[in-house]
Amino acid sequence: MTPIRVGVVGATGSTGVELISLLLRHPAVELVALSSVNHVGKIFSELFPKFRGRVDLPLVETAEIKSSSLDLIFLAVPHGVGMSLVKEWASTNFKIIDLSADFRLLNAVDYKQWYKWEHSYSEGLKRAVYGLPELFRDQIAAAQLVANPGCQPTCALLALAPLLQNGWVELQSIIIDAKSGASGAGSRVRKATQFMNIYNNVSARSLKKHRHTVEIESYLSELAGESLTLQFTPHLLPIDRGILMTIYAKPSEQFESMELLELYQQYYKNKPFVEICQHPPMLRDVQHINNCHIYPTYDERTGNILIVAAIDNLLKGSAGQAVQNMNVMMGWEETLGLSDL
Amino acid sequence: MTPIRVGVVGATGSTGVELISLLLRHPAVELVALSSVNHVGKIFSELFPKFRGRVDLPLVETAEIKSSSLDLIFLAVPHGVGMSLVKEWASTNFKIIDLSADFRLLNAVDYKQWYKWEHSYSEGLKRAVYGLPELFRDQIAAAQLVANPGCQPTCALLALAPLLQNGWVELQSIIIDAKSGASGAGSRVRKATQFMNIYNNVSARSLKKHRHTVEIESYLSELAGESLTLQFTPHLLPIDRGILMTIYAKPSEQFESMELLELYQQYYKNKPFVEICQHPPMLRDVQHINNCHIYPTYDERTGNILIVAAIDNLLKGSAGQAVQNMNVMMGWEETLGLSDL
Amino acid sequence: MTPIRVGVVGATGSTGVELISLLLRHPAVELVALSSVNHVGKIFSELFPKFRGRVDLPLVETAEIKSSSLDLIFLAVPHGVGMSLVKEWASTNFKIIDLSADFRLLNAVDYKQWYKWEHSYSEGLKRAVYGLPELFRDQIAAAQLVANPGCQPTCALLALAPLLQNGWVELQSIIIDAKSGASGAGSRVRKATQFMNIYNNVSARSLKKHRHTVEIESYLSELAGESLTLQFTPHLLPIDRGILMTIYAKPSEQFESMELLELYQQYYKNKPFVEICQHPPMLRDVQHINNCHIYPTYDERTGNILIVAAIDNLLKGSAGQAVQNMNVMMGWEETLGLSDL
Amino acid sequence: MTPIRVGVVGATGSTGVELISLLLRHPAVELVALSSVNHVGKIFSELFPKFRGRVDLPLVETAEIKSSSLDLIFLAVPHGVGMSLVKEWASTNFKIIDLSADFRLLNAVDYKQWYKWEHSYSEGLKRAVYGLPELFRDQIAAAQLVANPGCQPTCALLALAPLLQNGWVELQSIIIDAKSGASGAGSRVRKATQFMNIYNNVSARSLKKHRHTVEIESYLSELAGESLTLQFTPHLLPIDRGILMTIYAKPSEQFESMELLELYQQYYKNKPFVEICQHPPMLRDVQHINNCHIYPTYDERTGNILIVAAIDNLLKGSAGQAVQNMNVMMGWEETLGLSDL
Repeated sequence: MTPIRVGVVGATGSTGVELISLLLRHPAVELVALSSVNHVGKIFSELFPKFRGRVDLPLVETAEIKSSSLDLIFLAVPHGVGMSLVKEWASTNFKIIDLSADFRLLNAVDYKQWYKWEHSYSEGLKRAVYGLPELFRDQIAAAQLVANPGCQPTCALLALAPLLQNGWVELQSIIIDAKSGASGAGSRVRKATQFMNIYNNVSARSLKKHRHTVEIESYLSELAGESLTLQFTPHLLPIDRGILMTIYAKPSEQFESMELLELYQQYYKNKPFVEICQHPPMLRDVQHINNCHIYPTYDERTGNILIVAAIDNLLKGSAGQAVQNMNVMMGWEETLGLSDL
Repeated sequence: MTPIRVGVVGATGSTGVELISLLLRHPAVELVALSSVNHVGKIFSELFPKFRGRVDLPLVETAEIKSSSLDLIFLAVPHGVGMSLVKEWASTNFKIIDLSADFRLLNAVDYKQWYKWEHSYSEGLKRAVYGLPELFRDQIAAAQLVANPGCQPTCALLALAPLLQNGWVELQSIIIDAKSGASGAGSRVRKATQFMNIYNNVSARSLKKHRHTVEIESYLSELAGESLTLQFTPHLLPIDRGILMTIYAKPSEQFESMELLELYQQYYKNKPFVEICQHPPMLRDVQHINNCHIYPTYDERTGNILIVAAIDNLLKGSAGQAVQNMNVMMGWEETLGLSDL
Repeated sequence: MTPIRVGVVGATGSTGVELISLLLRHPAVELVALSSVNHVGKIFSELFPKFRGRVDLPLVETAEIKSSSLDLIFLAVPHGVGMSLVKEWASTNFKIIDLSADFRLLNAVDYKQWYKWEHSYSEGLKRAVYGLPELFRDQIAAAQLVANPGCQPTCALLALAPLLQNGWVELQSIIIDAKSGASGAGSRVRKATQFMNIYNNVSARSLKKHRHTVEIESYLSELAGESLTLQFTPHLLPIDRGILMTIYAKPSEQFESMELLELYQQYYKNKPFVEICQHPPMLRDVQHINNCHIYPTYDERTGNILIVAAIDNLLKGSAGQAVQNMNVMMGWEETLGLSDL
Repeated sequence: MTPIRVGVVGATGSTGVELISLLLRHPAVELVALSSVNHVGKIFSELFPKFRGRVDLPLVETAEIKSSSLDLIFLAVPHGVGMSLVKEWASTNFKIIDLSADFRLLNAVDYKQWYKWEHSYSEGLKRAVYGLPELFRDQIAAAQLVANPGCQPTCALLALAPLLQNGWVELQSIIIDAKSGASGAGSRVRKATQFMNIYNNVSARSLKKHRHTVEIESYLSELAGESLTLQFTPHLLPIDRGILMTIYAKPSEQFESMELLELYQQYYKNKPFVEICQHPPMLRDVQHINNCHIYPTYDERTGNILIVAAIDNLLKGSAGQAVQNMNVMMGWEETLGLSDL
């Protein structure tokens, strides 16, 4: 197959770097153009010596990247930037996968409430398809603009979708306690992410008001066919990558652990990147691969459903899922370039 | 004041070492005898170079330690060992603070169910006082045998006592999600605690059946005056020390965050080692001190109570609390030797 | 090209797992058989959930692996085991790449002196080729038995070869100070490698007598055409993978940093896995890739040559180099399956 | 004894915090005033919750601190700031212990060459005494201004002093390879000290030109009675605190390891904070205490002297040594407030 021509906007952030590493080995992609705000003119591999001899492309201005006759552009940019680029490029032909938060929500009202920022391109919200291929494969296949999900929502939605879609839980009973590594905290230089403030430490982040809450609630409500609110508490751990979630919920009726397991196995039967486990996954099981591991169980003693789920936040939680979305949009095998990580 | 003569059984485990470090600086204690199973005959400071010139005592057989005319003995031993020593020494005069799990529970039935082991000295369970000074100060002051609480129960009970004692929560709604360091996993050499299996990893431990569950439930039920079950999920983190808990519960009636804060402040008014915080504590805030930091809050959006609490598992969670118990038992200031860590 | 049939003896050690991960994505290899001592009968991916759906082969007895009509076998075994297998299989047709230390040295006398163990198959030492492709490519191409180098020797030899082969240093002046991660310390369960003994700690290992010393000295002496001894001090760091070496030596004559750089660039001109850097490499630059980064410089103030070199001990330091050796032995492109890590 | 009144300038940096923690427990010190540049008006324990109920002092302007009728002031400030304060306060009566680098060197020429900055108070350089009590106790006892040594020089000087003072090494042969934690890299927020840039990484810092080099050379030259240059290479490790040095040197004459050990034991006979070890120290042995552990040995095979030495950079390497200097200046027991850490 002839490779498609691909560009990455925001090539030097942690998501951008991970994405480039994946695109480099993808058999159907030619990496043509990289842009950056702070490092225009430099060679990518000078900044990241690991890529010497492998990605020696220059970093160009974002405005310039459009001129490279690309088939597809990844936006690995902060929120706010995604919407302005998508708006600017509304009439272009290339496909866009936006890894910012800008097109993940269902409407501009939610966006403003949780991101404290007016959405400048609400038409885009309607055009955009939410890029979680396990749930929305057909829409993604037909999309020209895909909003790549947040890392925490990806894990939470995959872990809870079978229950919500089948009405097995009390809607208002869900509690998600997440533990994640420092790469999920962004690569902006600040005091909170200094080594001495994370090492040998653990902390709860944005208690009661983390922005990923609304994203999780929105799509779970869609699956349930009814609006729900839930408790979401992420914690920052002294590790580099990965998210492990322990999820608690009340069942809407009685059942056994085994039925739960079967529900999940059935639901994800033909999904190559979801593994239903017989034991709680550890973070190590999913680091550096694009898979989501899920262990659902029922505690007869307490009457709670427990789900332990894990992903690599930089792969299934961002760059890996972006490549998976590209595969679906291009009509390729969903696992192309992702199966032998 | 004339120092009392103190011995430590199990001096070379991680709890023993921490305890010795505290006793060394305690103004009313003379550290007289140390015992060990595996290192009899060696000098303590040869095994732990940090104590050179400071604790150069020889390690003796446990049987021998009794002959040192001690006033008080700390048992820093595995469960099973505590009960046999306490039984053997039932008619001696010295006070005993047992840091094993053997006398923490209320009865032998619970012990067998959760520890999978017949309790060999159930009379001792009646004699023993549960050593959580913030809740049981008077009984501890009069005790000859104190069962030092588990690390996770210490944090959970302090975090939940005000709610349970005042009937502010639905009894069956409590979920405790704990994150703790590797020193809490014991110092026995095994595969699961090898560096390569913990580093850059996170895992849930003993899902649905961790032994600390029954200890937490027992004393919360006592406080509530009614039996309850709860969900307790500890997680092992790649750090050395500390426990951070995020606790979720449904209120039994409506109230505001501020009322919650006042309840806690009132409840712990004269307790020198409990700090009620206005912001969620981080692990760093409590490492290397004997304090418990608690942040209670109410989420109006979801209707849940959230509590974030933290302790150092080796201090307030074991050795520090043992010294605090000694202070209470001896009629000394509760903070003696613990306030300037 | 038709894939060759490959087996791995010792599949469940850390080197074995890394090797399998590489073979999985190698375009010219069919992974046919895996053996193990402790896990015979289990499925590989049950032990290592990361490989679910990707390596679901059963683990067989080592004796059995031979019967799978293999073209090439990797021995990822402890020293002592390598020599007995190679001896037993002396008359077979398949190629062998031995990742144990057994065939790395030049003679049985050195082996006994440093490994404190009689070599049971000294004829094998003569047959074996030392598998450092940058230095011994032609011999490897013709070999039936390749001894894969130690991780520390790989880094040290690549860092020093240009100087020794060209006579630029005083032979007896070399000091190698190495810093490496815990995966290099082996996966045997023991006290020294427990999390609590490595985390937040650093220690010098085997001062004055580390076994890799003789391996480094042997091949540097060959390159120099004259016998030399050197100081080698490895240090164990609380990280998972990688070796960073800082090397000090006295020049045999005066020259400038730039000349040094040119010497190295020239020496490694067509070697795809060696990068000569203009700045000291960090460990991050080489983790998860098969490259060795080398920064040579001269300190005019002190008159010393300094070399900072880094590799990933599990890739260029073992499994990656083993695959590189396979590529050379099979007459394939040296970078096959290794260039897009 | 009546406590002296003490102030700390720069209370909120990592050195300041460590110092306050020590002063808090010092029996002869009343902590009276704390100053800060960025947090004036706030309560110290609000910024550092660990100090709640223990250090609830307000942070004042530095100019104001002088008015608190203090007996002694610690300057825990960046270089450049130390010299201007000392100059400004030249005619005051209180004693000053400056933890910045400003008065550590012997003359303004060296200062300018290595710190790239004109020294604004070179008279102060003459008044200041170098605060390494093991070497300069008498001068410190009489001093009004003490320059607290750098962390790396403290460890290097203690490790090498016996050899240099007795002429046992070739002067130009010394190589110091240091490994140290992130607290030594300062608490200024910058990219290089972000968690993601230090975690699971190791790097050489300031190769050939680290500022501590001149400080080490200056005092070793004094001890030797002859000028020397040496190679000093620090490395940044993913740990929080501690320095481990491996030092290499050529002996000036032949001797045995045992003689070396005796030389060191004799030299440090009455020095309570220096331990001469029979085995190489690990970092863990000295973290959280004020001791320096030194293991000197001779390698007969290579003819090199090897010294492994370790300190806690925040204690013996800065705050602990500052308190030790105060003890000497005040005529107190040298170990007061430092022996039971």
